[in-house]
Amino acid sequence: MRTLLENIGEMITLQPLTSEQRGHSIKEEDLGRIHNAWLFCDNSTVAALGPMPVPADIRKFAGQVVDAKGALVLPGLVDAHTHTIFGGTRFDEFAQRLNGASYQEIAAKGGGIQASVKGTRQASDEELMKSAKRRLTRFLRRGVTTVEIKTGYGLAFKQELRLLKLIQVIRKNVRMEIVPTLLALHAVPADAKSAEAYVEEITKRLLPLVIENKLARYVDAFIESGYFSVEQAEPFIRAAEKGGLGVRVHADEFSNSGGAAAAAKWKAASADHLQHASKEGIQAMALSGTVAILLPGTSLYTGIPFTDARPFLEAKCAVAIASDFNPGSSFCENLAQLASLGALHCHLTSWQAIAAVTYVPALSLGLGDRKGALEIGFDADFAVYRMASLEEWLATMGQRLPSEVWLKGEKLHSY
Amino acid sequence: MRTLLENIGEMITLQPLTSEQRGHSIKEEDLGRIHNAWLFCDNSTVAALGPMPVPADIRKFAGQVVDAKGALVLPGLVDAHTHTIFGGTRFDEFAQRLNGASYQEIAAKGGGIQASVKGTRQASDEELMKSAKRRLTRFLRRGVTTVEIKTGYGLAFKQELRLLKLIQVIRKNVRMEIVPTLLALHAVPADAKSAEAYVEEITKRLLPLVIENKLARYVDAFIESGYFSVEQAEPFIRAAEKGGLGVRVHADEFSNSGGAAAAAKWKAASADHLQHASKEGIQAMALSGTVAILLPGTSLYTGIPFTDARPFLEAKCAVAIASDFNPGSSFCENLAQLASLGALHCHLTSWQAIAAVTYVPALSLGLGDRKGALEIGFDADFAVYRMASLEEWLATMGQRLPSEVWLKGEKLHSY
Repeated sequence: MRTLLENIGEMITLQPLTSEQRGHSIKEEDLGRIHNAWLFCDNSTVAALGPMPVPADIRKFAGQVVDAKGALVLPGLVDAHTHTIFGGTRFDEFAQRLNGASYQEIAAKGGGIQASVKGTRQASDEELMKSAKRRLTRFLRRGVTTVEIKTGYGLAFKQELRLLKLIQVIRKNVRMEIVPTLLALHAVPADAKSAEAYVEEITKRLLPLVIENKLARYVDAFIESGYFSVEQAEPFIRAAEKGGLGVRVHADEFSNSGGAAAAAKWKAASADHLQHASKEGIQAMALSGTVAILLPGTSLYTGIPFTDARPFLEAKCAVAIASDFNPGSSFCENLAQLASLGALHCHLTSWQAIAAVTYVPALSLGLGDRKGALEIGFDADFAVYRMASLEEWLATMGQRLPSEVWLKGEKLHSY
Repeated sequence: MRTLLENIGEMITLQPLTSEQRGHSIKEEDLGRIHNAWLFCDNSTVAALGPMPVPADIRKFAGQVVDAKGALVLPGLVDAHTHTIFGGTRFDEFAQRLNGASYQEIAAKGGGIQASVKGTRQASDEELMKSAKRRLTRFLRRGVTTVEIKTGYGLAFKQELRLLKLIQVIRKNVRMEIVPTLLALHAVPADAKSAEAYVEEITKRLLPLVIENKLARYVDAFIESGYFSVEQAEPFIRAAEKGGLGVRVHADEFSNSGGAAAAAKWKAASADHLQHASKEGIQAMALSGTVAILLPGTSLYTGIPFTDARPFLEAKCAVAIASDFNPGSSFCENLAQLASLGALHCHLTSWQAIAAVTYVPALSLGLGDRKGALEIGFDADFAVYRMASLEEWLATMGQRLPSEVWLKGEKLHSY
């Protein structure tokens, strides 16, 4: 279907941003802001766009014409760090934190990741897929059209493999873009002989299957005291790299554990969290082109400090914001809310904020040529908001859902 | 209509809290948590409640029986500090703050309160009422059934009087409980001769009309450097007190301006904001029974520090959370979100958090005998959530709206 959207009050295209070099030095003019715009989609991709009036030859080709009635159009949001597939709930942990317990204390009592591992292992395939799909629907309703999903609540050869296979089934059943990441190194399993033995099993038994069957695009590891050291994770990361998988890293969240520097050494696509990244680590990330993914939801949700984006931007390191959606430390699919509140508390400008949830995370997911911007040839993923401007979108902090979400040129009617 | 709700999975009644003495020393058992409960409403009020099964004589009297199917029922939330009536928008200010401007810098350039004064004066009565009603609907959808509304964007005799009259029209047209507060001393008007001259006009011309026509239940004043000093506000406050109006105070938000101590001296029902309240001020508030109303939305939304609730609670001062909904520094009607995030960052326990948005603010509004709890004789205002527990409600941070809202014993069908 060839669709023409006209009378868009304001459209943010992020068009000039489609050069990989510029993710770290976004300027206000890079928003590609068009007042009173039109957008033409040829089937699943953006074919043309511009300021009103619509050229006659474009109108002639349109199969359907939609009047946007002055609404705001933004590219579909891209969430590059989520833990969307898990069993069980951990709602009680939020109340425990209100009542004085720390994330680490909750984990020590069998809560935290281990609780979700238990819940995930106990859940049936059907339950896991059903709940994951429900969560993806919530992402969609909030304008998020691309979602990275990490495994990591299986924490055993068979269970991690099961999660990857379930993510593949989900991918084939939704129009959203789903990017699977193998986070087998999310924590040392309580039932493992040692961290090293677990890493060896994952590296030697699971990874070859994942590579052969293309079950994941990325691997990830939680580099932190009490989780995995750089040395422990290295064999897994190196083997993944060799097999053509990209690398993401949970780095320096609770302490400076050398995660940022290791991510740079591994030429990771992203290093995430980064509250305690060292100056050297940040500089190394900038040189290796590793995107810094900040996760302000965990700060809002658990009270840990926000990561200051400024040292990363000053070092010319691209900065994205992701939800870190997970059952314990950030139960929030509302990436728009995190773009607003996160930007304010992490110190991003308004233009950095919108790029941080669209084009920059797309870049970090290897989707910089078709997601996160309304560029000709890109997927026609966008959301329509009954608002006047990007400023209104930022100021309403995800409290006003889009009135329409379009995926690959098709308007979603039930979701 | 006599309505019986049965099969409530969990109901939080806050029943034992209906003694004024206990607002400051809430314990977990004061939640009045009933698992598998029923609630019986006789017309607009709560007539009986308890754990299932429903006694035969209650069932016999029920005109309609509603199966809650295991849902969570909470008392309607009470928002004791809002600026819901204003004209114009200030969405650009959020982006300006992201881009480095402070609240004070924005105000110095004609933004802030003065911008809303301009927008309000320019708006027609109809526009002001229509937008205020739209905002009240958003509060309702989020489970908020009682809303205090302050004037303060008129900032002139006629304009403040107009706002009070419009609030009265709105009050008569909605089933929600609306509590009007005259905040004529919100800022010194740009067109006033002096702060003193403005206070004198408001005190001598406006206040007698307000008292005579019962146009407000409370007065409020912004005590802060650059706004009003304690001495400047005192004649207005004293005259209001004499006329039988209650007192609320914007106190110690940007600096220790003696607002908390003044609120105590004036036996204010509440002192609000309080980031910089002194130890002496807090102790005086506890002695005078003044409720501390914390406004974490302004911290989330502008980046100013959160108020730590602990010194207030330790001094035996009751603590409430309110939205401070306003066009510039807290554009958020989602009191549930603020109960969760605010409690975490202001250091309230889970039981203090729910009391802080129900019973304690009701107390501060003089409604402690009929709002903010599900007590026999209280108004049957409550919300039904498709959740298992209070813990789930806290952990989902206002991201899941109630499936039903009931006002004075009637389920709302369109809002």
